[in-house]
Amino acid sequence: MESWPPGGSGPAEAGRRLRGLRGADLAASASLLSGAGAEAGCSAPAVAAVLPAGGSGERMGVPTPKQFCPILERPLISYTLQALERVSWIKDIVVAVTGENMEAMKCIIQRYQHKGISLVESGVTRHRSIFNGLKALAEDQPNCRLSKPEVVIIHDAVRPFVEEDVLLKVVTAAKEHGAAGAIRPLVSTVISPSVDGCLDHSLERARHRASEMPQAFLFDVIYEAYQQCSDYDLEFGTECLHLALKYCHIKAKLIEGSPDLWKVTYKRDLYAAESIIKERISQQICVVMDTKEDEEHVGHRLEEMLKNELNHVKVTSGRDIQQIILEQCYNFVCVNVMTSDFEETQKLLNMLEESNLSILYPVVVISVQFLDYESVPFGQKMENLMQIREFAKEVKKRNILLYGLLVYYPQDEQKLQESLRQGATIIAALIKERNSGLIGQLLVA
Amino acid sequence: MESWPPGGSGPAEAGRRLRGLRGADLAASASLLSGAGAEAGCSAPAVAAVLPAGGSGERMGVPTPKQFCPILERPLISYTLQALERVSWIKDIVVAVTGENMEAMKCIIQRYQHKGISLVESGVTRHRSIFNGLKALAEDQPNCRLSKPEVVIIHDAVRPFVEEDVLLKVVTAAKEHGAAGAIRPLVSTVISPSVDGCLDHSLERARHRASEMPQAFLFDVIYEAYQQCSDYDLEFGTECLHLALKYCHIKAKLIEGSPDLWKVTYKRDLYAAESIIKERISQQICVVMDTKEDEEHVGHRLEEMLKNELNHVKVTSGRDIQQIILEQCYNFVCVNVMTSDFEETQKLLNMLEESNLSILYPVVVISVQFLDYESVPFGQKMENLMQIREFAKEVKKRNILLYGLLVYYPQDEQKLQESLRQGATIIAALIKERNSGLIGQLLVA
Repeated sequence: MESWPPGGSGPAEAGRRLRGLRGADLAASASLLSGAGAEAGCSAPAVAAVLPAGGSGERMGVPTPKQFCPILERPLISYTLQALERVSWIKDIVVAVTGENMEAMKCIIQRYQHKGISLVESGVTRHRSIFNGLKALAEDQPNCRLSKPEVVIIHDAVRPFVEEDVLLKVVTAAKEHGAAGAIRPLVSTVISPSVDGCLDHSLERARHRASEMPQAFLFDVIYEAYQQCSDYDLEFGTECLHLALKYCHIKAKLIEGSPDLWKVTYKRDLYAAESIIKERISQQICVVMDTKEDEEHVGHRLEEMLKNELNHVKVTSGRDIQQIILEQCYNFVCVNVMTSDFEETQKLLNMLEESNLSILYPVVVISVQFLDYESVPFGQKMENLMQIREFAKEVKKRNILLYGLLVYYPQDEQKLQESLRQGATIIAALIKERNSGLIGQLLVA
Repeated sequence: MESWPPGGSGPAEAGRRLRGLRGADLAASASLLSGAGAEAGCSAPAVAAVLPAGGSGERMGVPTPKQFCPILERPLISYTLQALERVSWIKDIVVAVTGENMEAMKCIIQRYQHKGISLVESGVTRHRSIFNGLKALAEDQPNCRLSKPEVVIIHDAVRPFVEEDVLLKVVTAAKEHGAAGAIRPLVSTVISPSVDGCLDHSLERARHRASEMPQAFLFDVIYEAYQQCSDYDLEFGTECLHLALKYCHIKAKLIEGSPDLWKVTYKRDLYAAESIIKERISQQICVVMDTKEDEEHVGHRLEEMLKNELNHVKVTSGRDIQQIILEQCYNFVCVNVMTSDFEETQKLLNMLEESNLSILYPVVVISVQFLDYESVPFGQKMENLMQIREFAKEVKKRNILLYGLLVYYPQDEQKLQESLRQGATIIAALIKERNSGLIGQLLVA
């Protein structure tokens, strides 16, 4: 037995990692998969992934196939591709789509800048689509950059929350056992009906599991299985692990997965996916200020209030905005005090537009002004600030959601606290909802 | 065999019926269950429901048991109670909760005005909790208003979207077969692992079903089964239909249910439930106007725009607000033109406060003003309207979410159209999100 894989992938803390887990153990295992492990005498398998995406989504009850349903205006399948392509050791991703959706899929790949994707035509069933994907990997076609991998991952286009750790686990297990798949505990008891629609028997829930995705196989094993299998299997089968067992006598290793692996099946799942994505991109707020020296400054006090009021959110100072953009922070609070009304905001918007940050997710920018009644009357200040509507319309085209926030700045300390707290509440609401219907509005705290 | 039940319950159009389906067929069946059917020579069974709610919700990953997690600030279990108590032919609902949660549950019943609920202490497992509920129905205790039903429904506290039609189907089938339960197709293939964590075999998906709730039983059948069953069953069993089969040899009738029957299990399910509830209470908007005569009036034009822009939403004129409140419309757009700034809105708020409409769901009120730059300057108009913040804070205590909307009213016809369209977009956004962080804000279209 080879010394690959090392250690294991480390404990996964589910649901918190938008940009892929990078724990120490996982990094060690993954680096071996990337080829760096060759020095340690291990052989890293070449890994590809096949994604059947030819389904019609009839259970969803909507005309668009579920893998193309938009979440924050981006098709679901793009999130799944993103989850796979951020894993450095997956070399190729083959997506099987219907001829009808081929052009739409090409547009998605281009618009969201997906890399390393090959398209093949799907079959009429899931198994036939997977088989087509495997054929593309197996054949040495002219002008084709694909090559046969040692291990192939099979995943679903409608499971966007797959993490690197479970992919690594199934690939590692597949290399050892020939086949591996993620499983989950059953949520409901499974029963077997009799022909007259009555209960025949029920299965003991603890002794069964739901078979989920991803699964992984030695390429030669699963390709052999598909070549052998009957038309009946290709038409009515639902389980790749079953084919490996039936035709190659390979007993797949089963890997306990996290709840994140769930499949977007019904309309409610789209709602859930949208909420999860919104929550994940709302975990960090960057506060950008036009003044850096004075700690007593009202901008710093707003930052402190955000830290106090928004639990579970990381509030960072925008000292190095380029770095924060690189870290993929999607929420900016831009405090304008010393400079004229929108100068600081304009600078930030320019930087965001130059970066590609908003390609994948809508970026929220809240431009904060303070209102000192003694210097400028409220009505006049409001009128000055209404130009934000035009800015907002403009940057919306680049997927940036701009809102204005005018914070009342009274002399009375207690009232100021109250204004700042309400400002924090409004900021939290805008970031949480990410509603494009309210862009360009000037909210008052 | 008795002539009850008649016809069947009619096709259910899932997901559209917040207040319970009342199709012709269903009404006919249900009226028989209510006793009205006695004239037709049928005997309507006395029906009670048992709701085990003693779970700890460990799969949710949050400290609050999932049945008590808030959705729009109301605990999940209250939605389930609402779904059961709106069914007129369910006489009693017995809820089993832990001693620890007994007081909290009493508060929920009082606050949301639930009727016909009895509380019993839950056991350490689901089966023991159900058994406790059945005992409460079986025993003739002094000072207890419960009486033994002919048929008992068993449901879950965490399945809030159960509809009257499926309840009627399981009760009807239970009366005929002794036991009945809702089932759904399997979403994932079910497999059986071997002791070493590898695939032993997979089940053919088409020949199995997920057993869901609600279930219904002849009371004597299920009570007998619970009295007979072993400690092992009570500790580790998951399936009431199985107990009826094992101890009373009753083969339950299986009823295909709708996707609505899903169980809130994970955090993502809470997100989904909240989105579904928000969507359901956003299906109707009532436009209230202070002028009724002039069809060319800008208020009517806003109403027309809402009708055009918001597909799938019923936009009604608020000619008879009391009636609309009775019909449980949760969204009001109040157009103030002829009267002073908030007179019309104030009248509406008073009516809403007098009704109990906002006990179960937050009611959205959007107070619309029009801005004619020629008569009043923008800044001054804004300043006049900022008093909405105080109103909003006040009515929030009654679960009414008040927002302001100032619509620019230019002479130019095309610009006016654009203002109205943006107004409709903002109204849609506010109703959809129902965000209490933005109450009292004055938005500008």
